[in-house]
Amino acid sequence: MNVLFFGAHPDDIESFCGGTALRYAQMGAKLYFCVATNGNVGSTSLSKEEIAKVRKREAQSAADFIGAELIWLGFDDEFLIDSVETRHAFINAMRIADPDVVISPCRTDYNPDHSITGYIVDECLHMAGVPNIKTEAPPTKKAIPHLYFMDTPAGVGFEPELYVEITHVFEKKVKLLGYHESQNTWMKTLFNYEMDAFLEIPARYRGLQVGVPMAEGFRPSYRWGRNFSRHYLPDCLTGAGLEKS
Amino acid sequence: MNVLFFGAHPDDIESFCGGTALRYAQMGAKLYFCVATNGNVGSTSLSKEEIAKVRKREAQSAADFIGAELIWLGFDDEFLIDSVETRHAFINAMRIADPDVVISPCRTDYNPDHSITGYIVDECLHMAGVPNIKTEAPPTKKAIPHLYFMDTPAGVGFEPELYVEITHVFEKKVKLLGYHESQNTWMKTLFNYEMDAFLEIPARYRGLQVGVPMAEGFRPSYRWGRNFSRHYLPDCLTGAGLEKS
Amino acid sequence: MNVLFFGAHPDDIESFCGGTALRYAQMGAKLYFCVATNGNVGSTSLSKEEIAKVRKREAQSAADFIGAELIWLGFDDEFLIDSVETRHAFINAMRIADPDVVISPCRTDYNPDHSITGYIVDECLHMAGVPNIKTEAPPTKKAIPHLYFMDTPAGVGFEPELYVEITHVFEKKVKLLGYHESQNTWMKTLFNYEMDAFLEIPARYRGLQVGVPMAEGFRPSYRWGRNFSRHYLPDCLTGAGLEKS
Amino acid sequence: MNVLFFGAHPDDIESFCGGTALRYAQMGAKLYFCVATNGNVGSTSLSKEEIAKVRKREAQSAADFIGAELIWLGFDDEFLIDSVETRHAFINAMRIADPDVVISPCRTDYNPDHSITGYIVDECLHMAGVPNIKTEAPPTKKAIPHLYFMDTPAGVGFEPELYVEITHVFEKKVKLLGYHESQNTWMKTLFNYEMDAFLEIPARYRGLQVGVPMAEGFRPSYRWGRNFSRHYLPDCLTGAGLEKS
Amino acid sequence: MNVLFFGAHPDDIESFCGGTALRYAQMGAKLYFCVATNGNVGSTSLSKEEIAKVRKREAQSAADFIGAELIWLGFDDEFLIDSVETRHAFINAMRIADPDVVISPCRTDYNPDHSITGYIVDECLHMAGVPNIKTEAPPTKKAIPHLYFMDTPAGVGFEPELYVEITHVFEKKVKLLGYHESQNTWMKTLFNYEMDAFLEIPARYRGLQVGVPMAEGFRPSYRWGRNFSRHYLPDCLTGAGLEKS
Amino acid sequence: MNVLFFGAHPDDIESFCGGTALRYAQMGAKLYFCVATNGNVGSTSLSKEEIAKVRKREAQSAADFIGAELIWLGFDDEFLIDSVETRHAFINAMRIADPDVVISPCRTDYNPDHSITGYIVDECLHMAGVPNIKTEAPPTKKAIPHLYFMDTPAGVGFEPELYVEITHVFEKKVKLLGYHESQNTWMKTLFNYEMDAFLEIPARYRGLQVGVPMAEGFRPSYRWGRNFSRHYLPDCLTGAGLEKS
Repeated sequence: MNVLFFGAHPDDIESFCGGTALRYAQMGAKLYFCVATNGNVGSTSLSKEEIAKVRKREAQSAADFIGAELIWLGFDDEFLIDSVETRHAFINAMRIADPDVVISPCRTDYNPDHSITGYIVDECLHMAGVPNIKTEAPPTKKAIPHLYFMDTPAGVGFEPELYVEITHVFEKKVKLLGYHESQNTWMKTLFNYEMDAFLEIPARYRGLQVGVPMAEGFRPSYRWGRNFSRHYLPDCLTGAGLEKS
Repeated sequence: MNVLFFGAHPDDIESFCGGTALRYAQMGAKLYFCVATNGNVGSTSLSKEEIAKVRKREAQSAADFIGAELIWLGFDDEFLIDSVETRHAFINAMRIADPDVVISPCRTDYNPDHSITGYIVDECLHMAGVPNIKTEAPPTKKAIPHLYFMDTPAGVGFEPELYVEITHVFEKKVKLLGYHESQNTWMKTLFNYEMDAFLEIPARYRGLQVGVPMAEGFRPSYRWGRNFSRHYLPDCLTGAGLEKS
Repeated sequence: MNVLFFGAHPDDIESFCGGTALRYAQMGAKLYFCVATNGNVGSTSLSKEEIAKVRKREAQSAADFIGAELIWLGFDDEFLIDSVETRHAFINAMRIADPDVVISPCRTDYNPDHSITGYIVDECLHMAGVPNIKTEAPPTKKAIPHLYFMDTPAGVGFEPELYVEITHVFEKKVKLLGYHESQNTWMKTLFNYEMDAFLEIPARYRGLQVGVPMAEGFRPSYRWGRNFSRHYLPDCLTGAGLEKS
Repeated sequence: MNVLFFGAHPDDIESFCGGTALRYAQMGAKLYFCVATNGNVGSTSLSKEEIAKVRKREAQSAADFIGAELIWLGFDDEFLIDSVETRHAFINAMRIADPDVVISPCRTDYNPDHSITGYIVDECLHMAGVPNIKTEAPPTKKAIPHLYFMDTPAGVGFEPELYVEITHVFEKKVKLLGYHESQNTWMKTLFNYEMDAFLEIPARYRGLQVGVPMAEGFRPSYRWGRNFSRHYLPDCLTGAGLEKS
Repeated sequence: MNVLFFGAHPDDIESFCGGTALRYAQMGAKLYFCVATNGNVGSTSLSKEEIAKVRKREAQSAADFIGAELIWLGFDDEFLIDSVETRHAFINAMRIADPDVVISPCRTDYNPDHSITGYIVDECLHMAGVPNIKTEAPPTKKAIPHLYFMDTPAGVGFEPELYVEITHVFEKKVKLLGYHESQNTWMKTLFNYEMDAFLEIPARYRGLQVGVPMAEGFRPSYRWGRNFSRHYLPDCLTGAGLEKS
Repeated sequence: MNVLFFGAHPDDIESFCGGTALRYAQMGAKLYFCVATNGNVGSTSLSKEEIAKVRKREAQSAADFIGAELIWLGFDDEFLIDSVETRHAFINAMRIADPDVVISPCRTDYNPDHSITGYIVDECLHMAGVPNIKTEAPPTKKAIPHLYFMDTPAGVGFEPELYVEITHVFEKKVKLLGYHESQNTWMKTLFNYEMDAFLEIPARYRGLQVGVPMAEGFRPSYRWGRNFSRHYLPDCLTGAGLEKS
């Protein structure tokens, strides 16, 4: 099973669904981390070029740690726009990953890079298999993959429908996000919060909502061509059968 | 696995989720059909007492056919009210069935018996395990079961989130509903439709929506104490594991 | 009465509201079919240029069959973008048709060509009469026309508010869509469905919802400058008066 | 055409849709005003019995003025409850009126008498034709009538979907409401407003929204058994045909 | 300023808005805690009568600790019903407290005692001042008070619109809830959670959402007769003026 | 306190929140009026260049009258597009104003200039303080300001959550809008309404909803980084403290 994660910024995948990625990895899935923007505004001291380099290096380290393939689209941070060029770049990423399951930021998230990443993924997912759309990578052959939207910062405007328990991988998730060390300072400057608080508080809260110590929350994208008769998040792939686990 | 279905009227379970019941039965689950009202207005020629008797007999035949245990609450058709008495009757049914999964009409369905059945089930499900609530049957010991709302007549006001394929059990579903023969005339009188049309057209439409020939649609009830990290409808209980079926 | 239909792709108008178009035609309305994209990805064997030519020819034949004037915008399939250029093209189409009623795909439809067509139509409808916006065709003089959104593929995410009975024109609707023969193969490849199933199953389902054998479903666009004190879909134009038909 | 209006309190029909009632009356429709409660808390000086008498007399005068038949259910003001008794009283009223169109307060209105009146009407409308439900009046024979919800006080929580122009009957509407003279004082005491302001300000605002000097706003009730292929409010019954009026 | 809190069960006010109550108390407001049910199912070992006594004693201790007046309605736990009797009991409580601000559970909360408490408070708040409604306490003279809905257990189905910082009173909130010691065991039995987790995790999460260490979340009830031009939660009552605090 | 108003067209701020601007001005706040487009389609007789000049002059006069600083972005009327260029222009305006509170058209407003202005403001507000985003004006240092959406034309699709009383500044608001005299003719041509009706009818209606003679309505924008523990509209800045005014 190939799982493709889209993040708007270099640390988004790790922050909002790093635990789920670790769960998939433990089950033997092949992971792809596609990062839409280069994070080049994420510093108060470094220039755009300098911080972009740092952030790509950090993203690569995190991807290496979890064993994911990094797909770096390199668009300008805070200025992602829906365009013919952007759509082709996203479709190319989908074709590289040839995913069975896709996870992206949701369309109503708080930042235009997040919401537009979610928009393009949601609108263009079926295009990966269309031969007359030309990109570097060849069209996929699989059925249109299912899509889940990840949680938002502090869960504002987001009510999960499906949860993934991350209790036993939480420590590893902290480590995974730790590779994005340039962002700890930045988040503190912009929002007056440590990155760790962004991990632990939501993990405990989403856990409380679903009855386990720690969890991450998701919403399926219901659309023509990819409605659900079953789900493909980690807890849906284990323990099936007549007896409830 | 015990599966408890609530129907507002004697033929509702068979009409709106008979295919799903057949799928569960094939998998070896134990089924309970709880019917809230006695259907005593469902005739233009028989008195309330006479038609109620006919409908109970039909419901018992259908339950026997599928191997479900019938729980007959016997409230007056079209006059179900939320009351202390009604709640106790529903809780007693939950305790008889001791369910792992519950399916009920949805709270916004078109008929007060439907909507109030959905309301009481949704609001009182956690009470089955509370010792100080006294009913004939003893309290349950299991965790609060998950609840799914079945489709509405002709799907009005209902957008499914999860589907169950019923292609291979559809013929048997027609047979199952056939036991409620008194209702064919009644539906034709009231809504000018054959009961068969109520089965085939929605089955094909819900199938079209999810990409199989025939399906039934459901919505989970998201509430404190029973959120989801996986689902328990038939297609979620088979074929799990890393490879998508 | 002039009725302007917008379709994202060459066969969309015929698929989702061909029956309604036939009803309008029977009543003597003048029809305009405006197709936003050239459908140039709709083939697995032909090149973009070749399939675009085929699709335009098919669209013209269908328009001829029903007696509609075809307005072909020719944008690239799957890559419609909200831009100054696109808006002018849409406004020009509105001015050519000078419509009393407009029908378009809805803004939340599943494909970006659909959703952006619906977006531009809905946002720019009042601009057709503004003199300082320059296009080839001159500004319209009529009041801002009313807008209805057509149904989505398999009705996913769409709850109709107003229906049009198509029982007596259904056979002709099948014929009308039949002119788009290149799409039968394509739909089968992409979604594993025959085009006929896309016509008959929803027609019967929407009919079931409103109490006639076959129907198409619509939602009005409620916006400042075009709210409703009456409606202009075919069944609203006949049989008015105190006696209900 | 018979039109049945339900009001929670003696002056509600006149306040929220008196203009529409006058329009129907002008067209020759037969009107029924069913008032659910006796308005017996609507005074700071009279006892419950005294004010109830006054209000019934006022309601009768208003009904006489417009030529409507008054159906007085007489339940206690502010204490309407959904019960077997209440439902039968409402069903009996439906049978007396044998309506083609029904108008009621909406289910989310601000006062429990309003919301429960809307709830019972909406849930029980199909029961008027069911023979085994016994009331003084015999079952109706017509198809299930269409239902529209009237506007709320000051339009709070209410977005109209369909409007009725009342410009030319507004003066008469003021007169009609004038028969409820005991309520002018009461409204002023409770909400610090003259009744006239409740008529003129919303009339002008709803007019502004739909492009006429004065209007009243409505929402259809979309439910199984009574979806719409056309509408039956006054402006929908006149001027139909291909030419827009 | 009088602030009236409604709780469905003896520990609900303290759990979901105890911090806000403490903030009001510090500002010198007069507090009233009205508890709708007697909590008589909240034990696995004590009888209904015994546990009801324990819970009333605990509620009184908590109220004493914070300096609130306890209004004990004593309805049966899990069986609150909307009735003439219940409404009068609630109205009497409103008249005892004569509130400027009211806080209640929300109408969509997970438990029928919660949702019906929210329903009755929301629907009947304007009745406290109506002279012809007779209760033990005399009618109020103030304007209709504003109403805020408190958060739900684990925030399921609840998106706050307004927050109250509780950082500096959190320790005291834990103490306040500590008086309901019988419930610690009960919650653990029913939901497998310590009561403390119910306090700390949501406090930190709601804080994260609004940018302070710890907070409680609320939603105003927007209804005719009590819309808002300003708010009355604690943080809205301090630091006003042109400079932002 | 700096308050930044965004308008899509030269007279929008004055029309939809001119009363609120006057209230802020009376309190001593510093006002900024940022106008996104140059209004160059707003005439049936003048060319684009001519009417744009007229409208800028009118906007400047209105700003002078109230003492606001005018920020004129000058984009083409009816053709505002979300782009890298547009976003930078908006961010520059935010930096010039350095606001504590921002007011903009809402994202679902009826005209693309309105909806896209609302969209860009809502999505980009946090960018004003990001150093690596370069504009003419330097980055702001304040916390992310709170954002309120102003009412829509005739309130279509807009339910206010918070109101500002404008009774005592209404006469002045009429004068303020009077500076946009070119628009009186235009509105009458396009929508058949006098501009005065657009001021008085909604002012009385919003007043009726909140219980004062005249008001304007707003909705907060709830987003990560700017949730609310108190509000900053004029009536929230006065009369705070324990006693309700």
